[in-house]
Amino acid sequence: MKKSIEPRAFVLPTPVWVVGTYDREEKPNVMTAAWGGICCTKPPCVGIAVQKVRHTHQGILERKAFTVSVPSENHVQETDYFGMASGKNTDKFAATGLTPVRSNVVDAPYVKEFPLVLECEVRHVVEIGTHTHIVGEIVGIKADEAVLGDKGLPDMHKVKPLVYAPEVRAYYGIGDFAGRGFAIGKKFGG
Amino acid sequence: MKKSIEPRAFVLPTPVWVVGTYDREEKPNVMTAAWGGICCTKPPCVGIAVQKVRHTHQGILERKAFTVSVPSENHVQETDYFGMASGKNTDKFAATGLTPVRSNVVDAPYVKEFPLVLECEVRHVVEIGTHTHIVGEIVGIKADEAVLGDKGLPDMHKVKPLVYAPEVRAYYGIGDFAGRGFAIGKKFGG
Repeated sequence: MKKSIEPRAFVLPTPVWVVGTYDREEKPNVMTAAWGGICCTKPPCVGIAVQKVRHTHQGILERKAFTVSVPSENHVQETDYFGMASGKNTDKFAATGLTPVRSNVVDAPYVKEFPLVLECEVRHVVEIGTHTHIVGEIVGIKADEAVLGDKGLPDMHKVKPLVYAPEVRAYYGIGDFAGRGFAIGKKFGG
Repeated sequence: MKKSIEPRAFVLPTPVWVVGTYDREEKPNVMTAAWGGICCTKPPCVGIAVQKVRHTHQGILERKAFTVSVPSENHVQETDYFGMASGKNTDKFAATGLTPVRSNVVDAPYVKEFPLVLECEVRHVVEIGTHTHIVGEIVGIKADEAVLGDKGLPDMHKVKPLVYAPEVRAYYGIGDFAGRGFAIGKKFGG
Protein backbone atom coordinates (compact mmCIF):
# COMPACT_ATOMS: atom_id res chain seq x y z
CA MET A 1 0.00 0.00 0.00
CA LYS A 2 1.50 3.26 -1.10
CA LYS A 3 1.09 6.59 0.64
CA SER A 4 -0.34 9.51 -1.36
CA ILE A 5 1.65 12.74 -1.47
CA GLU A 6 0.21 16.12 -2.43
CA PRO A 7 0.84 16.59 -6.20
CA ARG A 8 3.80 18.85 -6.96
CA ALA A 9 6.72 19.09 -9.39
CA PHE A 10 8.63 16.22 -7.84
CA VAL A 11 10.35 13.18 -9.27
CA LEU A 12 13.62 11.32 -8.79
CA PRO A 13 16.11 11.90 -10.23
CA THR A 14 16.35 15.09 -12.27
CA PRO A 15 19.44 16.11 -14.23
CA VAL A 16 21.48 19.21 -13.31
CA TRP A 17 22.26 21.19 -16.44
CA VAL A 18 23.35 24.75 -17.09
CA VAL A 19 21.64 26.61 -19.94
CA GLY A 20 23.71 29.24 -21.74
CA THR A 21 22.31 32.23 -23.64
CA TYR A 22 23.23 35.74 -24.80
CA ASP A 23 21.11 38.67 -23.71
CA ARG A 24 20.34 41.86 -25.67
CA GLU A 25 23.63 43.42 -24.55
CA GLU A 26 25.59 40.37 -25.78
CA LYS A 27 26.30 39.46 -22.20
CA PRO A 28 26.69 35.68 -21.77
CA ASN A 29 24.31 34.31 -19.17
CA VAL A 30 23.75 30.92 -17.56
CA MET A 31 20.87 29.37 -15.65
CA THR A 32 20.75 26.03 -13.87
CA ALA A 33 17.96 23.76 -15.07
CA ALA A 34 16.72 20.61 -13.37
CA TRP A 35 13.58 20.68 -15.54
CA GLY A 36 14.85 19.09 -18.74
CA GLY A 37 15.27 15.92 -20.76
CA ILE A 38 15.88 14.46 -24.20
CA CYS A 39 12.62 14.52 -26.15
CA CYS A 40 13.33 13.06 -29.57
CA THR A 41 15.90 10.75 -31.20
CA LYS A 42 15.59 11.96 -34.82
CA PRO A 43 16.04 14.87 -35.06
CA PRO A 44 17.96 14.72 -31.76
CA CYS A 45 16.22 17.17 -29.43
CA VAL A 46 16.47 18.22 -25.82
CA GLY A 47 13.75 20.08 -23.93
CA ILE A 48 14.21 22.51 -21.07
CA ALA A 49 11.58 24.34 -19.04
CA VAL A 50 12.22 28.00 -18.28
CA GLN A 51 10.13 30.40 -16.19
CA LYS A 52 8.87 33.41 -18.12
CA VAL A 53 10.41 35.79 -15.58
CA ARG A 54 13.89 34.40 -16.17
CA HIS A 55 16.49 36.45 -18.03
CA THR A 56 17.30 33.24 -19.94
CA HIS A 57 13.71 33.07 -21.28
CA GLN A 58 14.14 36.25 -23.32
CA GLY A 59 17.65 35.22 -24.39
CA ILE A 60 16.55 31.89 -25.80
CA LEU A 61 13.45 33.14 -27.58
CA GLU A 62 15.21 36.09 -29.20
CA ARG A 63 18.28 34.16 -30.36
CA LYS A 64 16.41 30.93 -31.06
CA ALA A 65 19.40 29.14 -29.57
CA PHE A 66 20.85 27.86 -26.31
CA THR A 67 23.52 25.54 -25.00
CA VAL A 68 23.37 22.91 -22.28
CA SER A 69 26.64 22.67 -20.35
CA VAL A 70 26.82 19.62 -18.07
CA PRO A 71 28.70 20.42 -14.84
CA SER A 72 30.90 17.97 -13.01
CA GLU A 73 30.37 17.46 -9.31
CA ASN A 74 33.47 19.56 -8.56
CA HIS A 75 31.50 22.58 -9.79
CA VAL A 76 28.41 21.98 -7.68
CA GLN A 77 28.78 25.31 -5.85
CA GLU A 78 28.98 27.37 -9.04
CA THR A 79 26.08 25.38 -10.45
CA ASP A 80 23.92 26.07 -7.42
CA TYR A 81 24.74 29.78 -7.67
CA PHE A 82 23.74 29.80 -11.36
CA GLY A 83 20.27 28.73 -10.25
CA MET A 84 19.90 31.44 -7.60
CA ALA A 85 21.28 34.67 -9.10
CA SER A 86 19.66 36.50 -12.03
CA GLY A 87 21.52 37.56 -15.16
CA LYS A 88 19.31 40.67 -15.16
CA ASN A 89 21.54 42.31 -12.55
CA THR A 90 24.62 40.10 -12.27
CA ASP A 91 27.37 38.69 -14.47
CA LYS A 92 27.39 35.10 -13.22
CA PHE A 93 30.56 34.23 -15.12
CA ALA A 94 32.43 37.12 -13.49
CA ALA A 95 31.05 36.22 -10.06
CA THR A 96 32.27 32.62 -10.24
CA GLY A 97 35.40 33.02 -12.34
CA LEU A 98 34.14 30.52 -14.92
CA THR A 99 34.70 31.22 -18.62
CA PRO A 100 32.07 31.83 -21.31
CA VAL A 101 32.95 30.51 -24.78
CA ARG A 102 30.99 31.56 -27.88
CA SER A 103 29.69 28.47 -29.68
CA ASN A 104 30.81 28.23 -33.29
CA VAL A 105 27.61 26.35 -34.10
CA VAL A 106 24.76 28.27 -32.42
CA ASP A 107 24.26 31.83 -31.18
CA ALA A 108 24.86 31.06 -27.50
CA PRO A 109 27.75 30.66 -25.06
CA TYR A 110 28.78 27.61 -23.06
CA VAL A 111 30.85 27.05 -19.92
CA LYS A 112 34.46 26.22 -20.82
CA GLU A 113 35.19 24.42 -17.56
CA PHE A 114 32.23 22.02 -17.87
CA PRO A 115 33.17 18.78 -19.68
CA LEU A 116 30.13 18.19 -21.93
CA VAL A 117 28.12 20.68 -24.00
CA LEU A 118 25.06 20.44 -26.25
CA GLU A 119 24.51 23.20 -28.81
CA CYS A 120 20.84 23.68 -29.64
CA GLU A 121 18.58 25.53 -32.04
CA VAL A 122 15.01 26.21 -30.89
CA ARG A 123 12.40 24.09 -32.73
CA HIS A 124 9.26 24.11 -30.52
CA VAL A 125 7.98 26.43 -27.81
CA VAL A 126 5.05 25.32 -25.64
CA GLU A 127 3.48 27.47 -22.91
CA ILE A 128 2.52 25.19 -20.05
CA GLY A 129 2.01 27.35 -16.97
CA THR A 130 4.69 29.00 -14.87
CA HIS A 131 7.17 27.47 -17.32
CA THR A 132 7.67 27.54 -21.07
CA HIS A 133 8.86 24.24 -22.49
CA ILE A 134 11.49 24.89 -25.13
CA VAL A 135 12.60 22.09 -27.44
CA GLY A 136 15.97 22.54 -29.10
CA GLU A 137 17.50 20.41 -31.81
CA ILE A 138 20.98 19.23 -30.79
CA VAL A 139 23.02 20.50 -33.74
CA GLY A 140 26.39 20.18 -32.02
CA ILE A 141 27.99 18.27 -29.15
CA LYS A 142 31.34 19.13 -27.64
CA ALA A 143 33.31 17.36 -24.93
CA ASP A 144 36.68 17.49 -23.26
CA GLU A 145 38.93 14.79 -24.68
CA ALA A 146 39.74 13.68 -21.13
CA VAL A 147 36.15 12.53 -20.49
CA LEU A 148 35.74 10.40 -23.64
CA GLY A 149 35.31 6.65 -23.26
CA ASP A 150 33.40 3.84 -25.01
CA LYS A 151 32.44 4.58 -28.64
CA GLY A 152 34.27 7.92 -28.40
CA LEU A 153 31.44 9.26 -26.25
CA PRO A 154 31.63 11.00 -22.86
CA ASP A 155 31.88 8.49 -20.03
CA MET A 156 29.57 8.83 -17.02
CA HIS A 157 32.32 8.29 -14.44
CA LYS A 158 34.64 10.74 -16.15
CA VAL A 159 32.06 13.50 -16.66
CA LYS A 160 30.77 12.99 -13.11
CA PRO A 161 27.48 14.84 -13.64
CA LEU A 162 25.07 15.66 -10.84
CA VAL A 163 21.48 14.70 -10.19
CA TYR A 164 18.99 16.58 -8.06
CA ALA A 165 16.12 15.89 -5.68
CA PRO A 166 13.59 18.73 -6.16
CA GLU A 167 11.76 20.11 -3.10
CA VAL A 168 14.23 18.27 -0.86
CA ARG A 169 16.85 20.46 -2.57
CA ALA A 170 19.74 18.03 -2.58
CA TYR A 171 22.45 17.32 -5.15
CA TYR A 172 23.99 13.87 -5.58
CA GLY A 173 26.79 12.39 -7.63
CA ILE A 174 26.61 9.29 -9.84
CA GLY A 175 27.04 5.86 -8.28
CA ASP A 176 28.21 2.47 -9.45
CA PHE A 177 27.70 0.92 -12.87
CA ALA A 178 24.45 -1.05 -12.61
CA GLY A 179 24.19 -2.95 -15.89
CA ARG A 180 24.27 -2.84 -19.67
CA GLY A 181 21.21 -1.48 -21.49
CA PHE A 182 19.37 -3.66 -24.04
CA ALA A 183 21.25 -6.58 -22.54
CA ILE A 184 20.63 -7.42 -18.87
CA GLY A 185 16.87 -7.56 -19.43
CA LYS A 186 17.15 -10.41 -21.95
CA LYS A 187 16.75 -13.00 -19.19
CA PHE A 188 13.01 -12.24 -19.34
CA GLY A 189 12.82 -12.68 -23.14
CA GLY A 190 12.37 -9.87 -25.67
CA MET B 1 39.69 23.07 -26.55
CA LYS B 2 36.76 20.71 -26.78
CA LYS B 3 36.33 17.92 -29.30
CA SER B 4 33.22 17.95 -31.51
CA ILE B 5 31.04 14.84 -31.58
CA GLU B 6 28.52 14.04 -34.30
CA PRO B 7 25.12 15.37 -33.11
CA ARG B 8 22.84 12.69 -31.73
CA ALA B 9 20.37 12.17 -28.88
CA PHE B 10 23.01 12.05 -26.20
CA VAL B 11 23.36 13.75 -22.84
CA LEU B 12 24.37 12.80 -19.30
CA PRO B 13 22.57 11.80 -17.24
CA THR B 14 19.06 10.73 -18.23
CA PRO B 15 16.51 9.35 -15.78
CA VAL B 16 15.22 5.78 -15.99
CA TRP B 17 11.47 5.73 -15.64
CA VAL B 18 8.77 3.21 -16.47
CA VAL B 19 5.62 4.53 -18.17
CA GLY B 20 2.39 2.65 -17.45
CA THR B 21 -0.69 2.54 -19.70
CA TYR B 22 -3.72 0.42 -20.53
CA ASP B 23 -4.25 -0.79 -24.06
CA ARG B 24 -7.58 -1.34 -25.89
CA GLU B 25 -7.95 -4.78 -24.32
CA GLU B 26 -7.46 -3.31 -20.80
CA LYS B 27 -4.11 -5.05 -20.62
CA PRO B 28 -1.68 -3.12 -18.41
CA ASN B 29 1.52 -2.27 -20.26
CA VAL B 30 4.82 -0.66 -19.31
CA MET B 31 7.63 0.95 -21.31
CA THR B 32 10.98 2.18 -20.05
CA ALA B 33 11.66 5.83 -20.84
CA ALA B 34 15.00 7.62 -20.60
CA TRP B 35 13.59 10.51 -22.65
CA GLY B 36 11.73 12.50 -20.00
CA GLY B 37 11.83 15.31 -17.50
CA ILE B 38 9.78 17.71 -15.40
CA CYS B 39 8.59 20.54 -17.60
CA CYS B 40 6.54 22.89 -15.41
CA THR B 41 6.20 23.73 -11.72
CA LYS B 42 2.60 25.04 -11.73
CA PRO B 43 0.72 23.10 -12.83
CA PRO B 44 3.23 20.37 -12.01
CA CYS B 45 3.96 18.56 -15.26
CA VAL B 46 6.28 15.85 -16.50
CA GLY B 47 7.08 15.23 -20.16
CA ILE B 48 7.97 11.93 -21.76
CA ALA B 49 8.92 11.19 -25.36
CA VAL B 50 7.38 8.12 -26.97
CA GLN B 51 7.96 6.68 -30.43
CA LYS B 52 4.85 6.53 -32.59
CA VAL B 53 5.36 2.81 -33.22
CA ARG B 54 5.23 2.02 -29.51
CA HIS B 55 2.22 0.23 -28.02
CA THR B 56 2.40 2.81 -25.21
CA HIS B 57 1.85 5.65 -27.70
CA GLN B 58 -1.65 4.49 -28.54
CA GLY B 59 -2.40 3.71 -24.89
CA ILE B 60 -1.51 7.19 -23.68
CA LEU B 61 -3.27 9.09 -26.42
CA GLU B 62 -6.49 7.09 -26.16
CA ARG B 63 -6.75 7.16 -22.35
CA LYS B 64 -5.23 10.64 -21.99
CA ALA B 65 -3.37 9.30 -18.99
CA PHE B 66 -0.19 7.55 -17.93
CA THR B 67 1.87 6.80 -14.84
CA VAL B 68 5.59 7.10 -14.25
CA SER B 69 6.89 4.37 -11.92
CA VAL B 70 10.43 5.00 -10.71
CA PRO B 71 12.37 1.72 -10.40
CA SER B 72 14.99 1.04 -7.76
CA GLU B 73 18.35 -0.30 -8.83
CA ASN B 74 17.38 -3.77 -7.61
CA HIS B 75 14.89 -3.91 -10.49
CA VAL B 76 17.34 -2.89 -13.21
CA GLN B 77 16.90 -6.16 -15.11
CA GLU B 78 13.11 -5.89 -15.24
CA THR B 79 13.45 -2.25 -16.22
CA ASP B 80 15.81 -3.06 -19.08
CA TYR B 81 13.40 -5.73 -20.30
CA PHE B 82 10.50 -3.24 -20.25
CA GLY B 83 12.47 -1.17 -22.76
CA MET B 84 13.11 -4.06 -25.13
CA ALA B 85 9.89 -6.08 -25.36
CA SER B 86 6.67 -4.78 -26.92
CA GLY B 87 3.29 -4.82 -25.25
CA LYS B 88 1.79 -5.56 -28.67
CA ASN B 89 2.69 -9.22 -28.35
CA THR B 90 3.79 -9.74 -24.74
CA ASP B 91 2.47 -9.24 -21.23
CA LYS B 92 5.50 -7.65 -19.62
CA PHE B 93 4.07 -7.90 -16.12
CA ALA B 94 3.51 -11.65 -16.52
CA ALA B 95 6.99 -12.11 -17.99
CA THR B 96 8.73 -10.44 -15.05
CA GLY B 97 6.39 -11.36 -12.22
CA LEU B 98 5.88 -7.70 -11.29
CA THR B 99 2.41 -6.51 -10.32
CA PRO B 100 0.20 -3.97 -12.11
CA VAL B 101 -1.97 -1.81 -9.86
CA ARG B 102 -4.83 0.29 -11.25
CA SER B 103 -4.39 3.92 -10.23
CA ASN B 104 -7.34 5.33 -8.32
CA VAL B 105 -6.52 8.78 -9.75
CA VAL B 106 -5.87 8.29 -13.48
CA ASP B 107 -6.84 5.68 -16.07
CA ALA B 108 -3.47 3.89 -16.06
CA PRO B 109 -1.62 1.19 -14.11
CA TYR B 110 1.59 1.49 -12.12
CA VAL B 111 4.20 -1.01 -10.92
CA LYS B 112 3.49 -2.05 -7.34
CA GLU B 113 7.08 -3.07 -6.58
CA PHE B 114 8.57 0.31 -7.63
CA PRO B 115 8.81 2.78 -4.71
CA LEU B 116 7.71 6.06 -6.35
CA VAL B 117 4.85 6.72 -8.78
CA LEU B 118 3.56 9.82 -10.59
CA GLU B 119 -0.04 9.73 -11.87
CA CYS B 120 -0.50 11.95 -14.90
CA GLU B 121 -3.23 13.34 -17.15
CA VAL B 122 -2.23 14.33 -20.68
CA ARG B 123 -2.18 18.11 -21.25
CA HIS B 124 0.00 18.73 -24.34
CA VAL B 125 1.05 16.56 -27.27
CA VAL B 126 3.82 17.78 -29.58
CA GLU B 127 5.00 15.86 -32.66
CA ILE B 128 8.75 16.33 -32.91
CA GLY B 129 10.10 13.63 -35.25
CA THR B 130 10.53 9.95 -34.44
CA HIS B 131 9.08 10.81 -31.03
CA THR B 132 5.94 12.46 -29.73
CA HIS B 133 6.52 14.63 -26.68
CA ILE B 134 3.66 14.12 -24.25
CA VAL B 135 3.23 16.47 -21.30
CA GLY B 136 1.20 15.16 -18.40
CA GLU B 137 0.01 17.05 -15.37
CA ILE B 138 1.07 15.29 -12.18
CA VAL B 139 -2.32 14.88 -10.47
CA GLY B 140 -1.15 12.27 -7.97
CA ILE B 141 2.05 11.04 -6.36
CA LYS B 142 2.37 7.78 -4.46
CA ALA B 143 5.34 6.35 -2.58
CA ASP B 144 6.19 3.47 -0.31
CA GLU B 145 6.29 4.63 3.29
CA ALA B 146 9.71 3.00 3.68
CA VAL B 147 11.33 5.43 1.22
CA LEU B 148 10.03 8.65 2.78
CA GLY B 149 12.52 11.09 4.32
CA ASP B 150 12.95 14.87 4.66
CA LYS B 151 9.70 16.85 4.37
CA GLY B 152 7.76 13.59 4.05
CA LEU B 153 9.09 13.21 0.51
CA PRO B 154 10.83 10.22 -1.07
CA ASP B 155 14.54 10.15 -0.24
CA MET B 156 17.09 9.67 -3.03
CA HIS B 157 19.14 7.09 -1.14
CA LYS B 158 16.05 5.13 -0.11
CA VAL B 159 14.40 5.12 -3.55
CA LYS B 160 17.77 4.31 -5.22
CA PRO B 161 16.67 5.28 -8.73
CA LEU B 162 18.79 4.65 -11.81
CA VAL B 163 20.33 6.96 -14.37
CA TYR B 164 21.32 6.05 -17.91
CA ALA B 165 23.99 6.88 -20.45
CA PRO B 166 22.31 6.76 -23.89
CA GLU B 167 24.25 5.32 -26.86
CA VAL B 168 26.80 3.89 -24.43
CA ARG B 169 23.83 1.92 -23.05
CA ALA B 170 24.84 1.82 -19.40
CA TYR B 171 22.81 2.08 -16.19
CA TYR B 172 24.22 3.62 -13.01
CA GLY B 173 23.05 4.05 -9.44
CA ILE B 174 23.04 7.25 -7.42
CA GLY B 175 26.21 8.36 -5.65
CA ASP B 176 27.02 10.44 -2.61
CA PHE B 177 25.20 13.52 -1.37
CA ALA B 178 26.96 16.47 -3.03
CA GLY B 179 25.39 19.54 -1.44
CA ARG B 180 22.24 21.42 -0.52
CA GLY B 181 20.39 23.28 -3.29
CA PHE B 182 19.76 27.03 -2.99
CA ALA B 183 22.43 27.02 -0.26
CA ILE B 184 25.95 25.95 -1.23
CA GLY B 185 26.08 28.49 -4.08
CA LYS B 186 25.60 31.43 -1.73
CA LYS B 187 29.37 31.84 -1.36
CA PHE B 188 29.27 33.57 -4.78
CA GLY B 189 26.44 35.94 -3.74
CA GLY B 190 22.83 35.73 -4.96
